[in-house]
This record gives sequence, C-alpha cells and structure tokens, in this order.
Amino acid sequence: MRHFSIDTISTWERFYRANFINCLSGFKSANLIGTVNKEGQPNLAVFSSVVHLGSDPALIGFVNRPLAAAPHTIQNITATGIYTINHIHPSFVAQAHQSSAKYPEEVNEFEAVGLTPLFIDNIIAPFVSESIIKYSLQLVEIVPIKHNNTFLVIGEITNVIMEETLIGLDGFISLDSAQSMVSLGLDAYFTTNLVARYGYAKPDKVIKKTH
Amino acid sequence: MRHFSIDTISTWERFYRANFINCLSGFKSANLIGTVNKEGQPNLAVFSSVVHLGSDPALIGFVNRPLAAAPHTIQNITATGIYTINHIHPSFVAQAHQSSAKYPEEVNEFEAVGLTPLFIDNIIAPFVSESIIKYSLQLVEIVPIKHNNTFLVIGEITNVIMEETLIGLDGFISLDSAQSMVSLGLDAYFTTNLVARYGYAKPDKVIKKTH
Repeated sequence: MRHFSIDTISTWERFYRANFINCLSGFKSANLIGTVNKEGQPNLAVFSSVVHLGSDPALIGFVNRPLAAAPHTIQNITATGIYTINHIHPSFVAQAHQSSAKYPEEVNEFEAVGLTPLFIDNIIAPFVSESIIKYSLQLVEIVPIKHNNTFLVIGEITNVIMEETLIGLDGFISLDSAQSMVSLGLDAYFTTNLVARYGYAKPDKVIKKTH
Repeated sequence: MRHFSIDTISTWERFYRANFINCLSGFKSANLIGTVNKEGQPNLAVFSSVVHLGSDPALIGFVNRPLAAAPHTIQNITATGIYTINHIHPSFVAQAHQSSAKYPEEVNEFEAVGLTPLFIDNIIAPFVSESIIKYSLQLVEIVPIKHNNTFLVIGEITNVIMEETLIGLDGFISLDSAQSMVSLGLDAYFTTNLVARYGYAKPDKVIKKTH
C-alpha cells in the first residue's frame, strides 16, 4: 500500500486532485434538484451530496458549493423555500449529467438538456417526470460551512412520489430494482448489485444474512 | 405513481418509516470510522453519511446521530481530534455491519467483530487493516444540527493509504475495481457497475460518454 500525505496531494494538479478527493470520499447517490426562482423560472442541477439526517422528522441535507460556483439552486431555495430531489436512472443519466454545465440563470435546464418538468398539486418546484423516485422538501435551515464557503442545506420531506410496489414489507425501497444510480468523482455513474442485508446488529447476535 | 404526503408517512411504524426515509435519500458510501478514546481504547463503527465538502482544502463531513444514540465516535474525535475512514468491501462486510451494534464503551469493536486495527506512523487512530482504501483526518469543526440533535463532523484529510494502481491518469479512483461498497437503508450493502463517465459538462458541448 502507498502512503500519500496531504503535503504530497496538495501539490497535485487541480482537476486530478479534485477527482481523487471526490472519489476517496466514496460513492454518492445521484440526484437532480429542481427549483424555481421568484419569477417561476425552473432550474435543474445534479447533486451528489445528499445525506440522510434523520427519519423523524424526515430531514435530508445536501451540500451546495460556494455561491460563486453554484448560485442558482441555493438562491432559488432561499427565495421560495421549496425544492424537489429526483433520483437519476440510466435512461436519462446523460441528460442529468449535462445539467451540471454552467448555464446562465435565464436558461431552463429542463429544456436545455431534454428532461420534462412535472408540477404536482400545489408544490411550486418542478419534479423530473422521468425520475422513478422523487420527493419534495420544505427548507428548514441553511448552515454555512465557513472553512470552504459551502453550505449544508437542510430540508424536511413533504411529499414522496413513487410506485408503491418498490416498497418492501419492512419499508425498504428496492433502489436497485428502480435502478437509482450512484455517482463517483466528477463524472462517473454506476448501477448497483445487492450483496446482503443483515438486519439490526446487536452485541450478542451471531452475524448472518437476512436476505 | 403513488403520492405519499408526510402526514401519511408520519403515521407509519417507526422502523418501517426509518427504513423508507433512509432508502429514499439514496445509496451511500459504506465506511468504518476508527477512533481511540483518551486512554487509547480503540473504537470502530459503521457510518453511511460521509459527504464530500471540498477538495482544496480536502474536507470530508459525516453525520453523527444524537449523543444518546451514538456517543463513542464523536466523543473520541472531540477528545483526540484524529480519526480514520475506511472503505468497506465484500470480504468483511458482515463484520463491518456487526460493528453497528451498541457495544459498551469498554468493548474494542475490532476484537468483538474480528477486524484488525492498523496503526501507521504517528497517527493515533486505528485504520482497518482489511480495508483497501482508507484515510486519516484531523478534526476541523463539529457543527450541531439543532433540529434533530445530530452533528456534522468536519475533518481535513491528512493521509491516504491505498494501492497506487487504483488511481487513473486523471486522478479517478476505480472504487468498483476495489469493490468499495455502498449501503442502503438500515442494513443493506451493494457493489457497483460502471455505466458511464461523461467528462466535464459545458453548455455548448454535445453529451457523450468518455468511457
């Protein structure tokens, strides 16, 4: 095994280092976040930083890069308080990745990349029609991370749109059956294969697969 | 598609709802975090909430559950400032999952589940010897998330231990070759299959696979 110190890694070329550090932190869920600005202009962007914060209340976080690098999603969420998170699947992953391009604010990324906005009930943020699993959120708090000018955006789930048949008897969602994707590094996308489920671990329990 | 409101989801049984909400937020990287307490007692626990915060400085976050539910890792990091993150692979995923059991503080989870602590140079936190990709961190900040009493623990990468052959020409790490796993819900683990890499997206660029 090689041992790389941060002093060495810091000397690496910018994109090489960014790919390396991004990959090192592991696979991430691949999602599109849908918003509208104050004028109702839709915006869509890829995020790989969605993190589960708790299930009661159902809180989800995501990391927004510094404002200068990624202004639209966080501005729209600040303005409206409402956003959608939409799982990415192989049938539209190329379009989804293309939404990470830096389009001007006046461009509707749905139109630019060829995905279909879907408005449901009175939820003002657009869902991605092509996405098999999607949910809307109400903004709870934006936590500034001062060390690198990023933001942890925290929202509470308000609505979930998906086929009921994907939900197991214990609440487990077969994301592998839905082909929800994972992303890695700056530009790679993967599907998954179930290896095992183990059940709730207890100190005195023998380890065994439950599925 | 079914439409589930949070008012409906809130009525669901606790573990069913936890599995559902955990799955909804998507696949996560499956990692073991290694620490020591002030007396040098090793601790090891599974975390599925590692998130990339930035590559320069190389900042990684993870979510620690409320203190009453998960006290040891965050206490040790607060006390020593040093921890390791170790990718989980199929060869030891059962042992890794077992480390999520609530062992008393005096139990060394490495011994309890059958994994090998590895101390490198002057890094006081143990790595997992069996892990193919692992790194150490220096604590930067613990951000309390007041809405559900969780914590975003932010660290800066200090050292990376892995085979150099896993790193591509552009800094991309073949986590699928290394069989680094993803987790889902409360207890499921997956491997991955590369679908595509797309390169850096630009507004005027035609979408195409680069790999």
